[in-house]
Amino acid sequence: MRAYLDNGNTTPVDKRVVEAMKPYFTEKFGHPLFIYSEGKEANEAVENASEYIASTVGSRDGVVTFTSGVTEASDLALRGAVRARKNEGNHIITSEIENPSVLRVCEELEKRGFEVDYLGVDEKGFIDLEELKSLVRGETILVSIAHVSDEIGTIEPIKDIGEIIKDKNPSTYFHADIAASYGRVPFDMEKAKVDMVSLGAHLIHGPKGVGALIAGDKIELEPVNYGYLSLSKIRPGTENVPGIVGFKKAAEVSFEDFDSKVERIRSLRDKLISKIESTISKTVLHGARGDQRSPANVNFSFKNIEGESIMMHLDMRGISVATGSACATRKLEPSHVLTAIGVDPVVAHGAIRFTLSRMNTEEEIDYTLEVLPKVVKKLRKMSPMKS
Amino acid sequence: MRAYLDNGNTTPVDKRVVEAMKPYFTEKFGHPLFIYSEGKEANEAVENASEYIASTVGSRDGVVTFTSGVTEASDLALRGAVRARKNEGNHIITSEIENPSVLRVCEELEKRGFEVDYLGVDEKGFIDLEELKSLVRGETILVSIAHVSDEIGTIEPIKDIGEIIKDKNPSTYFHADIAASYGRVPFDMEKAKVDMVSLGAHLIHGPKGVGALIAGDKIELEPVNYGYLSLSKIRPGTENVPGIVGFKKAAEVSFEDFDSKVERIRSLRDKLISKIESTISKTVLHGARGDQRSPANVNFSFKNIEGESIMMHLDMRGISVATGSACATRKLEPSHVLTAIGVDPVVAHGAIRFTLSRMNTEEEIDYTLEVLPKVVKKLRKMSPMKS
Repeated sequence: MRAYLDNGNTTPVDKRVVEAMKPYFTEKFGHPLFIYSEGKEANEAVENASEYIASTVGSRDGVVTFTSGVTEASDLALRGAVRARKNEGNHIITSEIENPSVLRVCEELEKRGFEVDYLGVDEKGFIDLEELKSLVRGETILVSIAHVSDEIGTIEPIKDIGEIIKDKNPSTYFHADIAASYGRVPFDMEKAKVDMVSLGAHLIHGPKGVGALIAGDKIELEPVNYGYLSLSKIRPGTENVPGIVGFKKAAEVSFEDFDSKVERIRSLRDKLISKIESTISKTVLHGARGDQRSPANVNFSFKNIEGESIMMHLDMRGISVATGSACATRKLEPSHVLTAIGVDPVVAHGAIRFTLSRMNTEEEIDYTLEVLPKVVKKLRKMSPMKS
Repeated sequence: MRAYLDNGNTTPVDKRVVEAMKPYFTEKFGHPLFIYSEGKEANEAVENASEYIASTVGSRDGVVTFTSGVTEASDLALRGAVRARKNEGNHIITSEIENPSVLRVCEELEKRGFEVDYLGVDEKGFIDLEELKSLVRGETILVSIAHVSDEIGTIEPIKDIGEIIKDKNPSTYFHADIAASYGRVPFDMEKAKVDMVSLGAHLIHGPKGVGALIAGDKIELEPVNYGYLSLSKIRPGTENVPGIVGFKKAAEVSFEDFDSKVERIRSLRDKLISKIESTISKTVLHGARGDQRSPANVNFSFKNIEGESIMMHLDMRGISVATGSACATRKLEPSHVLTAIGVDPVVAHGAIRFTLSRMNTEEEIDYTLEVLPKVVKKLRKMSPMKS
């Protein structure tokens, strides 16, 4: 049996998505900028996808800019916004537990003279709303906070955050990376007073190589890349039309029977959490519980052993999981998110993240629950660390 | 009958390419950064594609950076190089007939204080080698010249250009956009002393949304986008693995029986050119002839009528072509390339570009040659311009 439980990093493409994309490879292959038949067909597909995807995040007049993925979308959101608004201020706020796609851009902006405040979080990963309130000021041109932590699954109170920002400075742009919540946690950008969201298709069983930035129609953005014309005013280059069509289809499948799909994932999550806690000693669940946690996320440390070793041993038995943060796979530093919520570095090294999707089955979870205690037991026996 | 003759803007994906990609959507769907089974499988696919694609441009130690397309590849090449080398000079050379993906970046670099010289071209579109020789100097950090003009098909003497640049300043980087020549005109980046090339899959019957920058291993580049880790040191974001696999397959098909495939396209090109010239009066072929012209490119002006009208009328009869430059479709300015080779603006407005591919058939060309004279005749009758 193979149980893929790293859907927070990427997901298998749904077969219906592949079917939807197929004609756009071989038949409806036109360039959407051109006004002959093949071009019009492609153009229409991109327009339809824009409209539909905007509707799934509660955007009525939003402008959808298709990108090569979440990373490019967040880069465009952050740098595009501060470039457009650099005369109005140079202050940016984000949090310590953002995905590297946001943090690396913020670090780059610091080098270019912007002042960036990194909000702290509590032991469950909730950002400090009082700190946020105290930091937003006249020169604050941008706040970027993810809806859900991709690593520990904590659902931030996005509406409260939006209200605090807009109360203190209505002209501050609020960007939310919703890659980890899209299709899993209900979200409405207008209700939450979010001006821009970044999302990616390959996290909802769509194809890699396509993402989107959705921004309110009054949001000013400057390009961060230059080149050949496209349908977008701010993002150059030929649109990935089949990818965009696949993105739309993946979203359609995700939002069809949304509640029951999410309920199923949540029940798998709860089974995984409760059984791990009842069958394995010395575990620490990172992040919040219940409704405050993404239905797709489980993140545990197993004391006295390395997450890296657990991952390798699970892989040998057919189970794929991540250790700590996605980006931490090829370096051995403890995850920046676990550090931010105050986890001891030694404990952080024993962290394993399981991310579920609607494609996971109860059998896969049962199999994981059968294998995991044995792996942990074996590794603890071999461990040089005191138990 | 439908005859798609705008393969210079985009191409239908080869069915073999779709087949090659398929398993990477649904089964081998892993994230190439991760070291569990699905990740290793994806990683291997990206490595294999890198190696193969590098070999097709004559690069032995080259570093392949997969991007979302040619536009991103050229942006990264140009801005990435000048950022890495800004302490060594601020002079850049390009030509007046480059694709917008290069020209827009150069214009942006001018705004940021770089000095850019735009080489003139002769009436066939060949750059002025003497002018190039006179312009390369100690502060010249970058020269960017396309191997083949995507609009008029002129094949630049890339080896002579490389030699002139390196003779005058061995440390000047030479970038060539090979999007319009890749898979159609033989090219070897090491023999031509080219340091960096940009290319895109969707111009050789591969998928949209994937391109590559290939750079010599000693070439220094800084990132122009920021974010989540990837296999690349300079380009963030999850790799488009199925797209990369499709890119490799498209290249394999293109380079299999390369000579005979190219010969077939060339014979279709020559039939199109000679029949248009013998059956339609007052035509002007733009660009060079014979071996100095891309086997895939035909670009004619039909005097006293608008290219736009010809395109629309051909589309109604099932034939897709471009007017003037690709990027000119939604604006009515004459093509910058035709202007650069000295074509009168009125004549430039009557330009139609046919770009062929190995998927075009003799029947399609015959059909086009049957329809085109009728369309031109009809439009000339209606034309208010003197004939």
